[in-house]
This record gives sequence, C-alpha cells and structure tokens, in this order.
Amino acid sequence: MCAAARLKRSGKTGLPPGTPIHIGERKADQVQLRAIDYNEDRVEERFVDDLNVGLAVPLPSGVRWVNLTGLHDLDTLKGVGDAFGLHPLVVEDIANTDQRPKVEDYEDYLYIVFKMLTYEPRAGVGSEQVSVVLGRNFVVSFQEWESDVFKPIRERIKSSKGLIRKLGSDFLVYSLLDIVVDHYFAVTEALGDEIETISEKVLANPNPATMATIHRLRRELMFLHRAVWPLREVVGGLGKKDSGLVTEATGYYIRDLYDHTVQVMDAVEIYREMMSDLADIYLSGVSNRLNTVMKVLTIIATIFIPLTFLAGVYGMNFKFFPEIGWQWGYPFFWLVCILTTVVMLVLFRRKKWL
Amino acid sequence: MCAAARLKRSGKTGLPPGTPIHIGERKADQVQLRAIDYNEDRVEERFVDDLNVGLAVPLPSGVRWVNLTGLHDLDTLKGVGDAFGLHPLVVEDIANTDQRPKVEDYEDYLYIVFKMLTYEPRAGVGSEQVSVVLGRNFVVSFQEWESDVFKPIRERIKSSKGLIRKLGSDFLVYSLLDIVVDHYFAVTEALGDEIETISEKVLANPNPATMATIHRLRRELMFLHRAVWPLREVVGGLGKKDSGLVTEATGYYIRDLYDHTVQVMDAVEIYREMMSDLADIYLSGVSNRLNTVMKVLTIIATIFIPLTFLAGVYGMNFKFFPEIGWQWGYPFFWLVCILTTVVMLVLFRRKKWL
Amino acid sequence: MCAAARLKRSGKTGLPPGTPIHIGERKADQVQLRAIDYNEDRVEERFVDDLNVGLAVPLPSGVRWVNLTGLHDLDTLKGVGDAFGLHPLVVEDIANTDQRPKVEDYEDYLYIVFKMLTYEPRAGVGSEQVSVVLGRNFVVSFQEWESDVFKPIRERIKSSKGLIRKLGSDFLVYSLLDIVVDHYFAVTEALGDEIETISEKVLANPNPATMATIHRLRRELMFLHRAVWPLREVVGGLGKKDSGLVTEATGYYIRDLYDHTVQVMDAVEIYREMMSDLADIYLSGVSNRLNTVMKVLTIIATIFIPLTFLAGVYGMNFKFFPEIGWQWGYPFFWLVCILTTVVMLVLFRRKKWL
Amino acid sequence: MCAAARLKRSGKTGLPPGTPIHIGERKADQVQLRAIDYNEDRVEERFVDDLNVGLAVPLPSGVRWVNLTGLHDLDTLKGVGDAFGLHPLVVEDIANTDQRPKVEDYEDYLYIVFKMLTYEPRAGVGSEQVSVVLGRNFVVSFQEWESDVFKPIRERIKSSKGLIRKLGSDFLVYSLLDIVVDHYFAVTEALGDEIETISEKVLANPNPATMATIHRLRRELMFLHRAVWPLREVVGGLGKKDSGLVTEATGYYIRDLYDHTVQVMDAVEIYREMMSDLADIYLSGVSNRLNTVMKVLTIIATIFIPLTFLAGVYGMNFKFFPEIGWQWGYPFFWLVCILTTVVMLVLFRRKKWL
Amino acid sequence: MCAAARLKRSGKTGLPPGTPIHIGERKADQVQLRAIDYNEDRVEERFVDDLNVGLAVPLPSGVRWVNLTGLHDLDTLKGVGDAFGLHPLVVEDIANTDQRPKVEDYEDYLYIVFKMLTYEPRAGVGSEQVSVVLGRNFVVSFQEWESDVFKPIRERIKSSKGLIRKLGSDFLVYSLLDIVVDHYFAVTEALGDEIETISEKVLANPNPATMATIHRLRRELMFLHRAVWPLREVVGGLGKKDSGLVTEATGYYIRDLYDHTVQVMDAVEIYREMMSDLADIYLSGVSNRLNTVMKVLTIIATIFIPLTFLAGVYGMNFKFFPEIGWQWGYPFFWLVCILTTVVMLVLFRRKKWL
Repeated sequence: MCAAARLKRSGKTGLPPGTPIHIGERKADQVQLRAIDYNEDRVEERFVDDLNVGLAVPLPSGVRWVNLTGLHDLDTLKGVGDAFGLHPLVVEDIANTDQRPKVEDYEDYLYIVFKMLTYEPRAGVGSEQVSVVLGRNFVVSFQEWESDVFKPIRERIKSSKGLIRKLGSDFLVYSLLDIVVDHYFAVTEALGDEIETISEKVLANPNPATMATIHRLRRELMFLHRAVWPLREVVGGLGKKDSGLVTEATGYYIRDLYDHTVQVMDAVEIYREMMSDLADIYLSGVSNRLNTVMKVLTIIATIFIPLTFLAGVYGMNFKFFPEIGWQWGYPFFWLVCILTTVVMLVLFRRKKWL
Repeated sequence: MCAAARLKRSGKTGLPPGTPIHIGERKADQVQLRAIDYNEDRVEERFVDDLNVGLAVPLPSGVRWVNLTGLHDLDTLKGVGDAFGLHPLVVEDIANTDQRPKVEDYEDYLYIVFKMLTYEPRAGVGSEQVSVVLGRNFVVSFQEWESDVFKPIRERIKSSKGLIRKLGSDFLVYSLLDIVVDHYFAVTEALGDEIETISEKVLANPNPATMATIHRLRRELMFLHRAVWPLREVVGGLGKKDSGLVTEATGYYIRDLYDHTVQVMDAVEIYREMMSDLADIYLSGVSNRLNTVMKVLTIIATIFIPLTFLAGVYGMNFKFFPEIGWQWGYPFFWLVCILTTVVMLVLFRRKKWL
Repeated sequence: MCAAARLKRSGKTGLPPGTPIHIGERKADQVQLRAIDYNEDRVEERFVDDLNVGLAVPLPSGVRWVNLTGLHDLDTLKGVGDAFGLHPLVVEDIANTDQRPKVEDYEDYLYIVFKMLTYEPRAGVGSEQVSVVLGRNFVVSFQEWESDVFKPIRERIKSSKGLIRKLGSDFLVYSLLDIVVDHYFAVTEALGDEIETISEKVLANPNPATMATIHRLRRELMFLHRAVWPLREVVGGLGKKDSGLVTEATGYYIRDLYDHTVQVMDAVEIYREMMSDLADIYLSGVSNRLNTVMKVLTIIATIFIPLTFLAGVYGMNFKFFPEIGWQWGYPFFWLVCILTTVVMLVLFRRKKWL
Repeated sequence: MCAAARLKRSGKTGLPPGTPIHIGERKADQVQLRAIDYNEDRVEERFVDDLNVGLAVPLPSGVRWVNLTGLHDLDTLKGVGDAFGLHPLVVEDIANTDQRPKVEDYEDYLYIVFKMLTYEPRAGVGSEQVSVVLGRNFVVSFQEWESDVFKPIRERIKSSKGLIRKLGSDFLVYSLLDIVVDHYFAVTEALGDEIETISEKVLANPNPATMATIHRLRRELMFLHRAVWPLREVVGGLGKKDSGLVTEATGYYIRDLYDHTVQVMDAVEIYREMMSDLADIYLSGVSNRLNTVMKVLTIIATIFIPLTFLAGVYGMNFKFFPEIGWQWGYPFFWLVCILTTVVMLVLFRRKKWL
Repeated sequence: MCAAARLKRSGKTGLPPGTPIHIGERKADQVQLRAIDYNEDRVEERFVDDLNVGLAVPLPSGVRWVNLTGLHDLDTLKGVGDAFGLHPLVVEDIANTDQRPKVEDYEDYLYIVFKMLTYEPRAGVGSEQVSVVLGRNFVVSFQEWESDVFKPIRERIKSSKGLIRKLGSDFLVYSLLDIVVDHYFAVTEALGDEIETISEKVLANPNPATMATIHRLRRELMFLHRAVWPLREVVGGLGKKDSGLVTEATGYYIRDLYDHTVQVMDAVEIYREMMSDLADIYLSGVSNRLNTVMKVLTIIATIFIPLTFLAGVYGMNFKFFPEIGWQWGYPFFWLVCILTTVVMLVLFRRKKWL
C-alpha cells in the first residue's frame, strides 16, 4: 500500500490546492454511505443512495452520523463534503490516505484524521486512514475499508447502552476514537507476544533469521510509534479546543482517552528499547559463538601442530639419525606426545578455555 | 502478571466507557475493607462487611480512611465508589491494574494512582497498583494484595506519633506516598547491590551468563524508570494543584517527597548508564579474549608450520638428495629449528604479543 | 557546487556588510527577468530587458510577479532590489546561495529563502536556492537555474485555474512554496525507493558496495533533513506573522502546507532511522559471515589435523616399530580415521555448527 | 561511603517525616561548633561548647556565621536547628548525607545543600555534603569532615580582605559556594590530566588495563556530572530568588559564579564525550590488532601449507614414482618452493597486507 | 595552551572574587594600547603610552575605540578598567582567558567575551579570547595576540567605507563580531576540506592512521562546537537586550549575523554527524578486511589440509600396504588431488567466497 500511495503522491505536483485526488490503494469494492440519526428517544438508520435525496432529510433534534466507506469515488466524496459545507482542503485531505494524524479547527467543525491499526498474525500490522468531521449536531466519518470496526458503536446507539444517546456529537467522536485506541492496545499486545517469543530465541539460539525478525519488529514498532505519537496530540488537542464543540461532560472521557494513548505510547517505547537491547544481545551472542569456535580450533591446532612436527622429524630420511635406531624410540615418542597433550590441556583449563 | 493483564486489556475493546472490568491477576484471596476514623483526640478502626451499614456511619470531625484490599470483586468496588461519589471512569481505572501513574482532579476529590514496588532476592522486582482518592475529609485507598505496606501508618495513627493526627487527609495521602517512595529506595538499593556484584564479574571473568544478567537488570531498571518517571509528575502535580485539597503545611512535606522521587530517579538513571557501560565493557572483554586466543593460535602456528615443512622436506624420498647423506645433517636440522624458534619468539616479544 | 560555494564564502571576510557578492556556481548562462501583472480580470506577461523601462510600468490593481533567473549578474540584482526598495542585506543574502532557509520580516515586505530540491537517478539530489520577496501587491522571486519549476503556476495564472487570480500576493507565495514542497515529496519518494532496494540487498547479500551505498544515502538524507527542518519553521513562521501581509483566507492553505512539510520531515526521519538500522544489520551480516567462514575452517582443521598427525606417526622410520609390521595395520589405520571423523561430525552437529 | 549510605537510607522506611537520622559514614571524630560574629568594624570568633550559652549571646549588628563539623551527633544538630528556628524537614535533610544538591525557600531563610568535591591522586574523587542555611543576618553551615575548606574565608573575614566584611550574609554564602566551585575546577583539571595520559596510552598501546581505567574515569565523570548539574540549578535559583535575602550587589557575583559552574559543566561534558570517543578508539584498536594477528597467521599459513603438501607428496612411498629417480628432482623441488613463495609475497604486497 | 590555563585556574582557589589574575599563556611580547576616535566627519588614531594622559583626552561627539593587545600586564588592564569604570568582576574575567562566550549587562555597558578562531594547516585550529565592552560612545576591545584581525575594520573606519562612520558604537561591535564569524566560516571550510580528504581515504584504504586523523578531527569539531554554540547565544542575546545600547538600525545587521552563526553551527553539526558516520565506516571496513583475510586462509587451508593428509597416508611405512605397489597409484593420487581441489573451488564459488 505504502509504495503505491507514495508513487501517486508526487503525481499531484503542480495541481492547484483543494483538488481532491484519491491517493492510496482502492481497498473497498463498493462505496457505501450509511446515515444514523439519533437522539435520546429514537434511532433511525438508513443507507443513502442518492446524495441529494438521502442527506436532504432535515436533521432531527439530535445527532446525525454519516459514515462513508470507500474513498476512491471522488464524486460521492465531494457530494458529502458539499452537503456538510466542508472546506475543499478538508475534502482533499480525506481523499489522500497519506495523512499524518491531526486535528484542525474550521470554526464550524473540527476535522480529525488518524490511523486505524489492525493486526493479523500472518500479515502483521495493517493500517487504514479514518477521517472524522465533528459538527455541532453531526458527525461524518470516512473509512477506506469495509472492515466494520465501528459496529459496536452502532449497536450501542441502537440498544441505547451507556451514555451515547444522552450526550451529543462530541461523545460520538470520543467513542469512535476510543475504539481506535482499543485496537492500538490489541496491536501492541500482539507485538508484545512476538517480542517475548523472539526474546527467548535470541538468548537460546541466535541465528540470522532471528536478526531478520528483530529487524521486522523494529520496523513495525517504528510505524506504530509514528502513528501513536501524533494521535496523542490529536486527543490532547481535542481536550483543549475551546471551539465550544467539546462539552465539559465529554471532557473527562477525552482526558481518560488521552491517558490511554499515553499508555500505548509507553508500551511502544518500552518495546522499542527492548528491541534495541535484543539487537545488542544478538550481536554479543554472535561474538560469543565466534569465540567458542576459535577456541576449539586453537585447542586442536595447538595440541596437534607440535606433535605433527615431531612425527615429521622422525619421518626424515637422514642417514645418521641416532634416535631411529634406539629400541625405546617409538614408545618414547608416544610418551612425549601424551605428556605434551596433558600439559597443554592443563594450561587451557587454567586459562578457563575448557 | 504482565502478559495476563495485557491479554485482558484488549478484551475491553468496544465496551462502553465507565464499565469497570478487573484487568490483572487476582492476587488477593479475599476482599477486605478496613475503615479508620480519626481526629486529634480519638481513633476508631473497624472492618466493614456490609457496605450499606459500614460506611453509613456519619463522619466524625476528622479524617476517614477506607482501605480496600483485592480488586476482583467488582460489586464491592462499585459500592465503595458510590459511597464516596466517585466518577464511573475512576472506578474503571481502579479496577484496571494496567494504569500509568497519574493524578486527576475531579474538583471534589483527587484521584491518584501509582505503583508499589517490592524486591525479593529470588523473584526480582514485584509491582502492585495502588489507587488513592483524596477528599476533603476522607481518603480511600485500593490495593491489589494483602501485603500490609501501610501498617506503619496505621500504627502511627493509633499511637499518635508525628504530625499525622494533627493534620488532615492531605497529610495522610502524603504519608502513603512517602512509604511508597521509601520502598522505591529499598528496591533501588537492592538493584544497586546486584549491579555492584555483576560489575566486578564483568571485569574479572565475562561469560554469556553475565550478559544474560546484565540484560535482566537493564530490563528491571527500565521498568523502574517507567514507574518512577510518572510518579515524579504525580508528586509534583500534587504540590501544584490549587484545588484547596492540599494545605500549605502539607505542601512543605510534598516538596520534600518530590526531592526524594528525584533522588530515586537520579539513582535509576545512574544505574542505567552504568549498565549501558557494562554491556560495552562486556563486549570489549569478549573481543580481548578473542584476541588472546588468536594470538596463541598464531604464535603456535607461525613457529611450527615452517618447521613441519622442513621436516617434511627431509622426509622426501628423492634418490639424489645430498643433505640426507651428510653426517651432521640431523644435528644441523635441529639447529635450524631452534634458531628459527628463537628468532620468532624475539619478533613476537617485540610486537608485544608475548 | 558545495565546495566551490564554501571556498568563496570565506573570501568575503572583512568586507563591509551589505556588499552583494555572488557565492555559488554560475548555473544559468543568461540572466532572464520575467514580469507578470495580473488581477482577477486580466493577465500580462513580458520579458524585461531594461530595468529602468521594464519595471517603471505602473502597477495594476492586482499583483506583479517578477522572476529573476541567474544570480551572478550583480548589477541586475541590485537594480531589481532598488526597484522594490529592498534592504542591502536582503540583496546580499539573495546573491549568497549558501543560505539557511529562513523568513525575515522587513515590515513592508517579507524575505523568504529556501532550497528547491530535485532528484535525478544518475546525479542524486540536486539543490537550488530560491529567494522570494512578498510585498503587499508584488512578489519577486530569484532562481539560480533556468529549470522552469514555476511554469505550472504561470500556466494556472494565465488560464485562471483555481483561486490564484482571486487571491493576492500571499496566495502566489503560498503556491510557489507548495510546488517546492511537492518536489520534496518526489525526492523523498525516490530516496524511499532506493532505500527499499538497498534494504533487500543488505538482507540477501551484504558486501562493501552496499555499505558505500548506505553511506551515500545517509548523507543525502542528512542534507534533506537539513533542508526540510528549517523549511518547516519558514512555513510555520509565515502562518504566524502578523504583518498583515498574509490574509486569513491564505492562512488555511499555509496551515495545510505546514502539515505537508511535517509529513516530508516524518518520512525523512523514518528513512534516517531505517538507514541507521540497515547499517547495524550490515555489520551483523558481516559478523555472521565471518562466523560461517571460521566454522568451515574449524571443522576442516579439527577433523584433518589429528588424522594428519596419525599419518605422520606411521610415516616415521623407527627401527623398532611394531604396528608397521602388522598385517591389518593399514586397514586399521583407515578404520580409526573414519571413526574419528564420524565422532567429530556428530559432535559438530550437536553443537549446531552443521 | 556510597554503599553504607544506601543501606541506611532504606532503614528509614516507615518512620514519620521530620525524624532526623544520620545517614552516611561517621567521618568526623568529634563534633565541633565554631561561631564567628562580624561586621564592618570588628570580628569575634569562638568555639561553642554549650548550645544554650554559646548561641544565646545576642547578635551584633552584623553577620553571625555558625559552622558545625560532624553530623552524627543528632542532639547538637537538633539544638542548632532549634536555635535558628529551622523546620524539622531541614534538620532531617542535613543529617541525611544522601541529598541531591538543591535550594529551598522557607521564607525566613534559604536552605542550600551541595557536594564538596576533593581529588586525591590515590583515592580519586571524594565527596562531602555541605548544608548551608542563609538567614537575614546569620549563616549556618554543616560539614561532614574536619577538612578545613572554609579556612580561606575565615582568614579573609579576619584580615578584612575584599568585600566580605562590607556585604551581608548573602555574600558570605556566595563566598562559600565560590570556594566549592573552585574545588570543582581543581577536580576537573585533575581528571583532565588523567584523561590526557590515558588518551595517549589508548592510541599507543591499548590493553585491557586501559579499558578498566577508561571505565573508572567514565564513572567518576558521571558522578561529577551528577554533582555539577544540580549545583548549576542551585546557583541559578539563588540568583533568581526574590525572597529579599539576596541583595543586588551580591547578585552580580552570583551571576559570575553561575558562569563558573557552567564552565565546569562544559569541561565535564567535553571530558565525557572524549571518554566515549576513547572507548570507541580502544575497540577499533583491538580490532586492528586482531587484523594484524590474523594477517600474520594467514601469510605464514598460505605460504607454507601448499609447500608442506608438496614435501608430503615427495615423501610418499609409491613404488612407481618417476620424479623420485630424476637427478634434478630435489633442486627442482626447491625451485618450485622459492617461486611459489615469491609469487605469494608479491600478491600479498599488492593486497597491501605487507 | 589549554593545559597551562587549566593548571593556573585552580591556583585561584580561595582568592577573593574580583582579583584579576592572568590565566593563560603569555602570547604577546608587548602590551599595546591603541585608541581611535571617530565620528562621521573625522578620524584620529594614536597609541597610548601613559594611561593617565592617553585616555584623559575628552571624547569627541562620536565613538572612541580602544584596543588592548596583551593581557598579562595587570596594571595596564586595571588602568583601562578604571578609566572606563568597569566592574572588578569584568576586569577579572578579561584577564582569565578560560572564559565561556557570554554577554553580560552592566546597565551602563555590555561586557561581551568570545573566542577568535584561526586555522593553520600545520597547527590546526588556534583560539584567542577576545573581550569587548560596549558603552554608549565607546568600545574597548581586549586581545591576547598581536595578530591583527581587526585591521580591515580600522581600514574601513579610516577610509569611511560602508556605514561604520555613520552608525554608533553598537555597529562597531557588530563589525568586530562579523569579522570573527567570518573567520569561523574559514575554519569550518578548512575542516570541511580535511574531512573530504579523510572521507575518501576511509572508503579506499582504511588504516590505523586514518582512525587517528578521524579522532583528531572529531576533537577539533567538538571544540568548535563548544565555541560556536554559546556564540550564537551571545549574538542572539545582543539582539534582544533592551538596554538602549543597541539601536534598531544595527538590529537588522545583528539578526543577519545571528543567521551566520546558525549557518556555522549547522555546518559544524553536519561535519560532526559525518565524522561519526566515518568512524562507523572505518570499523565496518576493518571488519570487511578481516573477513577477506579469513576467507583466504580458509580457502587455502580447506583445500590443502585434506590433500596433505592424503600425502601423509601414502608416506606411511606399513609393510602390508597394497596401493603402494600399484602401477597407477601415483597418477591416481594426483587425480584425486585435482578433483578435490576443483570440487572445493566450485563450492567456494557457489558460496560467493571467490
């Protein structure tokens, strides 16, 4: 995804600002626009096919939540943008899935963009960009995928669980962010388990494959770090905005959410430190193994090279060679060999090589 | 504990905020609720079985300190929360033992959460989450374990030692935190002793086991660092809160406590630097040993390989081989061998290899 | 370019301040001065040959954009400076292509200087200094090269695409900066592709050439970092200036541009971290290969050195040598050799060296 | 000292705050209390035996400086504390020699604590804790040792050298701190000389002993760093306190002192960087030596192993062995040996191994 | 110089503050005091022999610039200090050439101290301390050497080039600093050239001498860094002082100068990063060469050790040794040798060792 998105990003060079172009993979087959109107008393959910008809229904005395899945259909995107009076730059940013998490104040509404992270054992960490517009009595959310991460919230609205029906649009946005941060916890936990596994491998049996895994995990932690760090600013910024869009009641929840993002960040930083340590341990393990290998070679060579020389000496063909004729020459040779070996082994033991 | 807590944390995904779920190990067998009411003149301590009866006793003109041990019984937890009018988010945070140390201002009360650390020679550093709620005339503390770390304070209250009976609820909270920081000193000292031991081993005789110990100590210091750093902010924040809950008299003590946490932090940072140094020294020790091993191999090989060649030469079977027939050939061979060896040894000594 | 520029820089030592001297390569053959006057209704473009005549034409009720290509002709430069009332220090800075990106407020106008980056597959990252002066109803831009990076903006002005004709001189400056940042994206993407390629090489087959490439990429990323970091401050500063030169309507666009520079910076930082990781992986790869080489040597030597000794023993010429005469001596010798080898191989397999 | 102090520190766990306990070694044999009263006209010095009598003498229109040597006698300490109305926490901190340098404002007086450093060629850096209380017309200083570091100041007071008799208690405190910082300079210089020596050794002849020295120096620099860093804050804080205890005239001197602490800090940081560099140079020196050793081994082995094989070939006992019978076989063998050796040496020279 | 200065610094321990002592080498043979009085209309230059006479001449309606070369004559120094009413601490700081660059506000005048750097190809970076006192209508500068770095400014004053005669004493100080920063550029460029040279050597042919050069350059860059960093603060502080001594007209020039110091700093930081990279590349080069050496050894040994064993086998003297008697035994032996070698070489090529 990343490479494709990047290739397209430079394709915008020279275009006038505010021109929406979809940057990123086309992840959703079909564009789907779903609207939920709710207040404390009633809930109404419907799929919108025709923008002019669907969003023209007057707003009830509550909150309207519109969710758009699939960002490649620029006409629908612009239509939704016009229906809620969004600035062209906002629509452009929504279409560009290469955004850094941020919150922007447009007086009448706040534009919030962040990354939804998921973890699949085979595929590793996956990322989806989610944009949310928070107005006084409406929330518009934009997703890349059909993955239904916001389903629990729809259920809670329908079944009127918790505070969500009592509080306004700001609490809905808080709930969306809360789900996202919960997924961050899940991703962090999954990586933590992988780190635990590799950590044991590095201490027990380091090999180049472990190094490659360490490298991959460090890379994923780096991307996680880059996603969480600005998210913290987003949540922190949301709590501090005095645009009147965030009420005091929701403020407590956002402060709580902020603590959660800090917790995720903390975990990510701990894992990053641990991975950095692991890389060092791996290298020291490699050095230790080299040492062991070299000791074996040195012990073998130091014992046998002098003996081989001695055997070579008594293999010489000199005519005048007194020892050759001695009766005890051969047993004496072996005696010397055994003595030398024993002395060497004692020396090695003293140097703690054995 | 850590792994279990993490696994449960992601189990909360999608639940409405304010739903208390116990995250962490069940460390206490039995839930125990103990209440102490005291003022300058009298002290009264009792165990509370029935929340409605036990906490319904009207407050005296002093401080009521309620301590709950065991967080897995959510009904008791919610009951205590209701009795003191705590926000649902606070109750949720108390039940979740995965918190980062923090202090939160809820106008009528402050919610403080931190880690109690203990050190066991066999088990290493252990951690327990303690939550404290500071109200105008009450303090509620929540512990995971039955470990009675707050016993000295109860004793001091009963025996009226020190200022504790004269000052209010803020001084009680200060006293609780003071005990916690004292335990941090003990943990730091214990780690310092271990570091001293390993430090000598690394200089004298580095082996892979020392590296594993270094790794373990670095990990424990990292967790200590992560516990102390936010605690400093908690204590610092407590001193700066202008909610009227912390009096000026207690302020001096909190400033003193703040200095203590900075001292602990300082010690932890020093140890972290020392461990980082030790890891480098270990690696340089490994390199030095490799050098020594290779020098031995090279000296042996450089002396004997040429001599073995020479012995091989005079072991050849050429028909026309003048030296073979010489009378002094064999003694001359040994002369050459000895001379070569001496020259080599002199050269090695000059290069400072010997 | 760099070396030449630096050599000239020290040549200014001792000259009075405000003396313009062209520092840098002469990149343009010919000095070219192009002026565009536009407002919402009409556009007029012309090349200026004689400064006194060309710039004396009275300004229309719109924006005058003057672009100078080629900075080595100091007379023209000073002429343009005088025509728009620029401070001598500004003219000196424009001529000196060794500037750090910055924005300076001279009350009547803002002086902005930054680096235009380009990427050529063969030549790597190229850099050109662009200076822009933003006045109330004029913009003067200064380029080193004839490379026509601002052509899309001229086209947009002529064809009246987007907002550019409706908004003032500040929007024109924003558009110039926007093009520059778009080029930064392109350069970052190109480097990202190179990093992807080298990253695979390092894991598959590390050799000294890969290290040299890593070194080159780190150097280019360092220069990119040094160009982007102050650019962020420039764009941020532009958004905050309250000199009345930047209108609120343009403010939203500049905030958007600021986000883009942060995105570029983020990408550069990620790449820098990845390169640092790669260097480590390269080194660990080299260590691993050394380990492999040494294992092969040790296995061969450990097996054959004892056997060679044995062969040497039975090559000795002792007169009294019982085994020599045995009938099964020779087959027995081979038996011992094969047994030793098998035992060794089993030992090596157990130590996981094979 | 460090280990002893730490062991005692945790012994305070659970004690009420404000309980003075002497933490640290008992460095002074005898407690000595010396008082100097001075103003511009006269000086009076005496040793105080009985606190009630000694300090009961009314204060003259000048400054009273009381110096206590030896902190293990808690009664005397508390007596002095009571005589000057010090807060129990201050007395507790004075007795605990494990303090971090700090300045604390108690409205009527400032409590300042810092480390006095000394350097002995044999023993390395020694440390003593000095506490100073600055009141409007009194100064109380507390030392651990009988080492008479403040003697020059007593001399200056008696001989009325410099400004010390003209200015108040704040100038006296400044003078005490000035002497301390001067000692820091001396310690830094001594370490600098040691670093110079080890620096030459590392470049000339690195061996494991140099690494141990580097390690020791890094540790001492780390402790120096930890002592100087907060001292800077102490001096800086003293200059900024607006408690009316520090006059403007003394302010200039304190600013000057602040510059001195920054200079010491700078020197310490430079030395730390240099030591870090030295450790790298040491490691690269070890690697270089390994390279040299391996080259020698490889050259010897590469020349002689093939020749030994050749000698082995002509030592074989095949019946049908044509070369054996040739008349020029043996000289030809030597010719081949010499030619091979020359070719090898030329190759090695080309690869720059020789 | 450094060592000498440091030794003397600790010699001041215990002296009253404000006692000027010359710390540093005696670099100038003769003390020289030169005064220039100038205003827009006329210039007057003279050497002052007798302080009482020379500086007693009343000041004209312009600027008096007094320059003192040689700081070891404390009487002259004190005389100049008294003539301009300087604080004793200022005179002490001027005499001590061990200062950190700083600017200090003494209400009537500013005291500025910084380092003048020069570069000599043989001697490396040299450093001289320059102190400047900026009063309303006078400037006093203090130099250690007779090196005439300020000559261009004297020339400019005499020939009335640039603004220097029109603006006041603050512009003169700016001009002095400007010359200093220009010299910094020259030093940085010279180091940059050296780095370029060593950079090529490291990639082409790393040897211990390159490591020593890298070490030397890193040390010089460290000292440069330590000189430039506070200089930036000095220039920045000068621009922000609201003592009325720096006029708005000069303010623009000082802001420009500030940018120059930032540019120097940037260059120094880039060079520091490059040197750090170079050290890594050097180490990886050493590792690579070790790898190459070991591969050669392993290839030679792996081919010849088994062959030597085989030759040893057929050199054995067993009575019952069938192969010995075979007619094709000897050619077959060679066949086996050649085949083994070819197989080995193919294997090595496959493993990319050749």
